[in-house]
Amino acid sequence: MSVTDEYLRNNEEYAKTFKGPLPLPPSKHVAIVACMDARLDVYRALGINEGEAHVIRNAGGVITDDEIRSLAISQRLLGTREIILIHHTDCGMLTFTDDDFKKQIEEEIGIRPPWAPESFSDPAEDVRQSLRRIEASPFVTLHESLRGFVFDVATGRLTEVTLD
Amino acid sequence: MSVTDEYLRNNEEYAKTFKGPLPLPPSKHVAIVACMDARLDVYRALGINEGEAHVIRNAGGVITDDEIRSLAISQRLLGTREIILIHHTDCGMLTFTDDDFKKQIEEEIGIRPPWAPESFSDPAEDVRQSLRRIEASPFVTLHESLRGFVFDVATGRLTEVTLD
Repeated sequence: MSVTDEYLRNNEEYAKTFKGPLPLPPSKHVAIVACMDARLDVYRALGINEGEAHVIRNAGGVITDDEIRSLAISQRLLGTREIILIHHTDCGMLTFTDDDFKKQIEEEIGIRPPWAPESFSDPAEDVRQSLRRIEASPFVTLHESLRGFVFDVATGRLTEVTLD
Repeated sequence: MSVTDEYLRNNEEYAKTFKGPLPLPPSKHVAIVACMDARLDVYRALGINEGEAHVIRNAGGVITDDEIRSLAISQRLLGTREIILIHHTDCGMLTFTDDDFKKQIEEEIGIRPPWAPESFSDPAEDVRQSLRRIEASPFVTLHESLRGFVFDVATGRLTEVTLD
């Protein structure tokens, strides 16, 4: 049995006690951008209930055009007004360089990715990079709060990162 | 008090019983791409435990260059071998058209987004679009399983979508 099948069986159990539907717009008006890391259960780590917050995730929790797209839709169509960024310690993005990753792929399949892998060497500094990218975007401007954090995978604790 | 502050207080409680760190590579070798929708708690809906699976999310759960980037890193550096795609009913992406969204932004701030908003009119058909985009990518090729689903926000149940 694949893990996908195992998760589908879990979903049957989940559906038995599921109560829906909740309204579409996030009730707490929050959008979160976090790393895809398996150890970061965003709902549990922040105590989020279903229906409260948009959760956007990718490798690193970085801000690219696709996160700007998601945040623009989140704010303009679904009314979110706070943004929370979450990077974390022991991130996979610390283990390689963009040049090496692209070169390895090019050597193996002959095609170099036209996108930046977005590796980084310091989670806190990359939170600052993400804060700055959002502040520089003309498409994500409706938030009243924008704050960034590093999640410690050893302690489960968030530490705030500021631009100052 | 902002919602961000409220979530930070929740995180203090979470950290009190947190046990870490788990290993970096996902123990179940799975990567999930899902919509950012607030009602879709991916870990609970699939019965995922911390450390098992990468969770990638954006507006719609669509596949753009950034999801290809995340999946390539997930497979090549962190060993995932199954991909699960999740769209859902009552999605915000059904409520607008790309042209209208871009026009509204251009009229308001004078700059037209250079990215596609990626609205769609049928969640199941857009799961197929996502399946095809992954199959067409030269950078995401290491999976042994690739399956797509629509999550019903009324029942909590996943329904599989196939290309046939």
